[in-house]
Amino acid sequence: MLPDGFNGAMTRRPNPNRSGEKNVLWLYGIHAVRAALENPHRKCRRAVLTQTAAGHIGERVLRGIDVQIVGADEVSRILPPGAVHQGVALACDPLPRRDLDEITAGEARKIVVVLDQISDPQNVGAILRSAAGFDAAAVIVQDRHAPPESGALAKAASGALDIVPYLPVVNIARALEQLGDAGFWRIALGQGSGRALADAMAAGNVVLVLGSEGAGIRHLVRARCDDTASIPIGPRMESLNVSNAAAIALYECRRSK
Amino acid sequence: MLPDGFNGAMTRRPNPNRSGEKNVLWLYGIHAVRAALENPHRKCRRAVLTQTAAGHIGERVLRGIDVQIVGADEVSRILPPGAVHQGVALACDPLPRRDLDEITAGEARKIVVVLDQISDPQNVGAILRSAAGFDAAAVIVQDRHAPPESGALAKAASGALDIVPYLPVVNIARALEQLGDAGFWRIALGQGSGRALADAMAAGNVVLVLGSEGAGIRHLVRARCDDTASIPIGPRMESLNVSNAAAIALYECRRSK
Repeated sequence: MLPDGFNGAMTRRPNPNRSGEKNVLWLYGIHAVRAALENPHRKCRRAVLTQTAAGHIGERVLRGIDVQIVGADEVSRILPPGAVHQGVALACDPLPRRDLDEITAGEARKIVVVLDQISDPQNVGAILRSAAGFDAAAVIVQDRHAPPESGALAKAASGALDIVPYLPVVNIARALEQLGDAGFWRIALGQGSGRALADAMAAGNVVLVLGSEGAGIRHLVRARCDDTASIPIGPRMESLNVSNAAAIALYECRRSK
Repeated sequence: MLPDGFNGAMTRRPNPNRSGEKNVLWLYGIHAVRAALENPHRKCRRAVLTQTAAGHIGERVLRGIDVQIVGADEVSRILPPGAVHQGVALACDPLPRRDLDEITAGEARKIVVVLDQISDPQNVGAILRSAAGFDAAAVIVQDRHAPPESGALAKAASGALDIVPYLPVVNIARALEQLGDAGFWRIALGQGSGRALADAMAAGNVVLVLGSEGAGIRHLVRARCDDTASIPIGPRMESLNVSNAAAIALYECRRSK
């Protein structure tokens, strides 16, 4: 995992932040940066980017923030080693916390994804991307066992971090209780357990709960679910990659109802 | 991308290979190594692993090869930096090349995945894993624009590299012609193009063609397909991660027919 800021002990690079930019987050990559700039809830501070990247992002989107046109090397210099930045870095504030009540309000059918201790930012980023693609209302994660908002997560999410609410909560089981009270049908996804997902699908609001590939969903989390279901796969593989399983589950949610 | 051997210029580590092990491939990770050891087509040479990893893999599977029990540090030392090896490294030969004719033979319904210039081993590995999960007959890639058989690819595939045939070909368009002649229905997957995938699905043998996230499927490859289809997503995202799109397409293949 790449360090997501420049204040940690992991990085040996000079701090590229200006004074007053202490808690700034550096996002990178064309899609991630464009989505951040277009998100009215995101406070953006300044962009450091190449002329080419500026062309891709577009003048309209860049209007209103401090823009510094530089060479690609200079963009690399302010980001963690190996960051695939496509010529652009954006200094911004972390997103304000959203409230679960906000998410569950409204009449339209809603899908919420709950991730129980999935820590890899690549997987969580890809899940955010699919969640945004299939119009999920939120991705809920456990505060202490999920990737923090970071450049690596935003890049893997390809803009989705600024589209679908990413909600760290202290207690996943309590969040599931709250969603149950709000009328959501809570489906725990496991391998080889319960019915096929297509048969477990509900027409109303749905929560899809996924666990880590090693440990699966913890018992106390599964106990808060209304049903257990799996994606039918052949006997040659034990399981799918967790982001692939999430994508299929989201697709099935939208396909069948 | 991690270097996949120890003969390249990228690595600064001592060559851990014994004499006569020049073209040896180092695989790592519990699932990848176990699948390699269980694959009758894979020539395995020796395993370097911790006592714990040996327990996970099992005595039966390890029987018949040279086994060296070491500390985890020693496993790290023979692998590329950052390799998540779970305490095990396996020296083996690359798999023998398979022939397309072999794949298309037989009566049962077959699904083949064709990847046009998808180069990221994480994505290709996850696609192999889903292909194995949904019993695909092969994953075909273009020789020069696909990740080579490597430890990183095998790890991302979580064993699937030794389960589903991975077929590099010189010319993807020619392979598609050959598959068409063998009666396969060839579907090019794009975003926002053609019909919804569920409506384009055929009951017989199917080829799913996917392109890279940036460039998509090349024109000359798309021209060899019978139909174009897409996975319906909302307007907030341009596209899904390519391995997630492949997983959904494979699921749809098995679900609908």
